[in-house]
Amino acid sequence: MAQLSETFLYQAKVYVTLRPSVLDPAGTAVRAGLSHMGYDNVSKVRIGKYIELELTAESEALAQQQLDKICDQLLANPVIENYRIEVFTAAVA
Amino acid sequence: MAQLSETFLYQAKVYVTLRPSVLDPAGTAVRAGLSHMGYDNVSKVRIGKYIELELTAESEALAQQQLDKICDQLLANPVIENYRIEVFTAAVA
Repeated sequence: MAQLSETFLYQAKVYVTLRPSVLDPAGTAVRAGLSHMGYDNVSKVRIGKYIELELTAESEALAQQQLDKICDQLLANPVIENYRIEVFTAAVA
Repeated sequence: MAQLSETFLYQAKVYVTLRPSVLDPAGTAVRAGLSHMGYDNVSKVRIGKYIELELTAESEALAQQQLDKICDQLLANPVIENYRIEVFTAAVA
């Protein structure tokens, strides 16, 4: 009998932000827009991506490992962006 | 003598996500891309925005109030998007 490995469903939140040394023209535009609208007290606007996804894996550590790869390969550009991953247990898949 | 109102510096994180009923073509494309790359265990990819900013305000409640307005008016499209705001105290401005 083949051994069935149990997999679990995980929810993940990925935050992709520009590295601090990289200029953020979109953030600057938003800041200028806000200033134009009268919100002069706002500064340092930085715009990033927020990605929610679900994945199945045998353990939380493996899910985290795979998400690291996914971020490096697709979700983020490691040259100019940082990313942060949060993994939550959802249920038995 | 005029009364000087003390202002504080707050850091805020804003998460803008598509409402669950709204289709997310970018998320679907990412999911298809991941599947193409061999990550068949990933599902339900939703892509949103993550905005970091700093603002000065007289209290955390006022900062939160202003951020609500800013989200409704500029950062999010309330028709198709939800937003969540986190405010942190930074320092005396």
